[in-house]
Amino acid sequence: METTAHAIGRGRLAAILSGVSIALGFLASATWALDAGESIALRGIPDKAPACATCHGAHGEGGGDGLYPRVAGLPTAYLETQLKAFRDGSRSNALMSPMAKVLTDADIAAVADYFNRQAPEFPVAPGAKQAQLARGQALVTIGDWAHGVPSCVSCHGPVLQGVAPAMPALSGQWPRYIAAQLEAFRHSTRPGGPLGLMSRIASGLSDDDTRDVALYIASLRPGVMPEIPRPSAPEAYRAVAQSPDAFTPPPEASMPDGPFGDMVRLGENIFEDTPKHAGKYVGNTLSCRNCHLDRGRHPRSSPMWAAYVHYPQYRKKDGTVNTLQARIQGCFRYSENGAAPAADSPEITALASYFYWLATGLPVGIAPKAVGYPKLESPKEPPSPARGARVYAAKCALCHGEDGAGRNADGKPVFPALWGSRSFNWGAGMHQVDMAAAFIKSNMPYAAGGTLTDQEAWDVAVFVNSRPRPQDPRFTESVEKTRLLYHKDHKYDYYGREIDGKVLGAPSANRP
Amino acid sequence: METTAHAIGRGRLAAILSGVSIALGFLASATWALDAGESIALRGIPDKAPACATCHGAHGEGGGDGLYPRVAGLPTAYLETQLKAFRDGSRSNALMSPMAKVLTDADIAAVADYFNRQAPEFPVAPGAKQAQLARGQALVTIGDWAHGVPSCVSCHGPVLQGVAPAMPALSGQWPRYIAAQLEAFRHSTRPGGPLGLMSRIASGLSDDDTRDVALYIASLRPGVMPEIPRPSAPEAYRAVAQSPDAFTPPPEASMPDGPFGDMVRLGENIFEDTPKHAGKYVGNTLSCRNCHLDRGRHPRSSPMWAAYVHYPQYRKKDGTVNTLQARIQGCFRYSENGAAPAADSPEITALASYFYWLATGLPVGIAPKAVGYPKLESPKEPPSPARGARVYAAKCALCHGEDGAGRNADGKPVFPALWGSRSFNWGAGMHQVDMAAAFIKSNMPYAAGGTLTDQEAWDVAVFVNSRPRPQDPRFTESVEKTRLLYHKDHKYDYYGREIDGKVLGAPSANRP
Repeated sequence: METTAHAIGRGRLAAILSGVSIALGFLASATWALDAGESIALRGIPDKAPACATCHGAHGEGGGDGLYPRVAGLPTAYLETQLKAFRDGSRSNALMSPMAKVLTDADIAAVADYFNRQAPEFPVAPGAKQAQLARGQALVTIGDWAHGVPSCVSCHGPVLQGVAPAMPALSGQWPRYIAAQLEAFRHSTRPGGPLGLMSRIASGLSDDDTRDVALYIASLRPGVMPEIPRPSAPEAYRAVAQSPDAFTPPPEASMPDGPFGDMVRLGENIFEDTPKHAGKYVGNTLSCRNCHLDRGRHPRSSPMWAAYVHYPQYRKKDGTVNTLQARIQGCFRYSENGAAPAADSPEITALASYFYWLATGLPVGIAPKAVGYPKLESPKEPPSPARGARVYAAKCALCHGEDGAGRNADGKPVFPALWGSRSFNWGAGMHQVDMAAAFIKSNMPYAAGGTLTDQEAWDVAVFVNSRPRPQDPRFTESVEKTRLLYHKDHKYDYYGREIDGKVLGAPSANRP
Repeated sequence: METTAHAIGRGRLAAILSGVSIALGFLASATWALDAGESIALRGIPDKAPACATCHGAHGEGGGDGLYPRVAGLPTAYLETQLKAFRDGSRSNALMSPMAKVLTDADIAAVADYFNRQAPEFPVAPGAKQAQLARGQALVTIGDWAHGVPSCVSCHGPVLQGVAPAMPALSGQWPRYIAAQLEAFRHSTRPGGPLGLMSRIASGLSDDDTRDVALYIASLRPGVMPEIPRPSAPEAYRAVAQSPDAFTPPPEASMPDGPFGDMVRLGENIFEDTPKHAGKYVGNTLSCRNCHLDRGRHPRSSPMWAAYVHYPQYRKKDGTVNTLQARIQGCFRYSENGAAPAADSPEITALASYFYWLATGLPVGIAPKAVGYPKLESPKEPPSPARGARVYAAKCALCHGEDGAGRNADGKPVFPALWGSRSFNWGAGMHQVDMAAAFIKSNMPYAAGGTLTDQEAWDVAVFVNSRPRPQDPRFTESVEKTRLLYHKDHKYDYYGREIDGKVLGAPSANRP
């Protein structure tokens, strides 16, 4: 039984239901025609279930100070999933379960569609202290990766509007309901959501966190993007020399004011939303953060602080000594499938400044013991695209889409495209199966890194990297020649190899 | 009495002199006409002094395995100084002093000129162990700044050919003589040379150093430039995290092999001889090392390792966040009075790579407690160009020239120009009197930093910075407007101010 339902007695529940049913009686008697979903929502199913609106409001706005959640605007598929979970008992709730049991699949589809289309006003936000809102804002926009908590916006969308099919909107939700659900996830009184992610994430939250995140979300207005908190007076932070093996970048809230701080912030903005802030150099929908989690801080995700202290560096890839700037240019050209900004462009300087700031206190040129995408051992079985496809369907498609094109919210990319025209090209490091496998093993599924087996990581890496993607910008004459010139005999670089009857990278194979 | 003379008995000396005089008798009786210097050198002064050639050889090649030094090719003024020192007793030598006493100023000038024009072959180098030569090579080309020892080449010229008027050639000199003189400087049995520099420097050498440097110099062939030692297998060097307050860059001999090492070496070469290795971007005769001593390592001389970890940084000078690359570009534009190489040019990448390597183990963005040009307190008396001119004449002109144009050896700059067309321009940081005073106080005279009083440093800084120099490349319309735009109201920026009836920076005042 869930915490919300648990909090109120059965008798009081019955009284509430009866009172609200009377109040809503006029709707049931209205003369206009209602479609199936509307009818269930507003009238219920005679003699079997009261109107959803009884508790959730006519437009799904919820009520009872969050005892009844807002369901308006939630993805249809998400609503269907929840109703079916109540019906089959996998999600347990004293109020919802009996009602869900009388609904057919068609009823569920219809009522889910009805509430998906609703957009009532947001509830009035309760009062909150500044410190509570600040902590909530940090959790919503940054997360708390040290405790395994990614930002809310990274899955629920930039304005927490939800991302179909699986991620519900959080904006407009009642704070008491959000807190209750987080507690239910944490105490396993509600199923953990897709791949169990929400129970993992909620486990990283303290009681105060749970309250603060709910209060902050309630303070947001519709469509307004929550921003990383920027204190007007940055937190005092004493930069000290640190060991590369136990390095912590400076806290976000200590980012300095003034023109240098502005440049660092611009760098972080570009990092977090590259198409928006450096659009003319980006040829797909990816952002730096898609490969470098926690705003480039995550130690197992090629953190930018480690990169900062290891350039200039000779790279076989282009046979030259790359400065940090040249290395960033490479990301634009390949991973972003775009055109490199000039070495002294504001974009590159901003990114370099951000990386520099992240590296505060880290010794130059000393390799941290374990950082980056820790290398995987060779796979026991040769990586198999067929097995990888099954892993992908089970663990990846939810966010990245069955077609690998990622998922958007309001047209803006939330989950990155893994193949096709919106993804990285055949020159990007991630097209190498060993690098992709290492990244995946450590970091995927998002916020659940380390949960795949090594073999699963290898298999899904080769599956993803045998799909069509944009041509290598260094393409010369033919795939064979391009492979010879630039891909050489790297064992796990499959460009130019034949898989499932297609030569990877061949123009015909790059068309989806 | 000097060590060399001290080492042999009087009786043996007399025997040597007599024998050599007989052997050279044929020269005295030759029929061709000799000029005054030649005559003294080859015939001596009848009844008063034997021929110089008796000991030093007809062409000043020296002999007695270095008991008698090579005097061939030494600067005329240096030879005159030495002969006068023997004559007046300030340099004491049992053999030389009595002979010098009979020479007139005119005799001295003539014989000095004669030997200056000679170029006999070099003596055969004695055997030496590889380790001895390697240590000697390091001292000759790098020095040992931790013990106050600059490289020999930095004052005696790139091929140790001597730099008129005061620095004798070392190439071709007998190793035993070199070692003996270093010992004499060390034990104050020979005056310390100009400003006492050689006694300071020799004090930093061990007995083994003295021998090794002499052996290495003896191994050099005429006109061949000694190079910084590059071991074929770089020394094992375990890079470790270090404190910024007690930082030591990696040893030169640990510079890595391979393409990254090549880039670092190119950077060091550019740093050490900028006109040679980055000539197209240099508009004067200065090199990076002229302001950043010990190849950019000296902690009191704005070391490049400290610079590396403090960029990107906002700079008021141009109102932008400068990357390290942009900062280096500024040096080319102003201090080098040239044109900046592109941010991603090989020259800038090489310099950045060299600085990066120097910073190995240094934490990013943590200010070392005392590094750079330590700031001076405000001067007690306002800085005075007139007083500064006197300091300059006494302490600086020896190397930088009475005309401030520096000094060359074989046409290549050895001591940098401090004003005039061969020096930094009005946009360089060093034109600011406070910065120049701080630099001078810590670093000048070369290898004798800290020996001037604060007031002397302020005075000589304002003297140097009230001489003519190339225009600020940002010059706009007039000196007044340019000052307003770029020099602002900085108290110690004298650009646009009137000194000695001239407006500094005005086109008329920039003509020497």
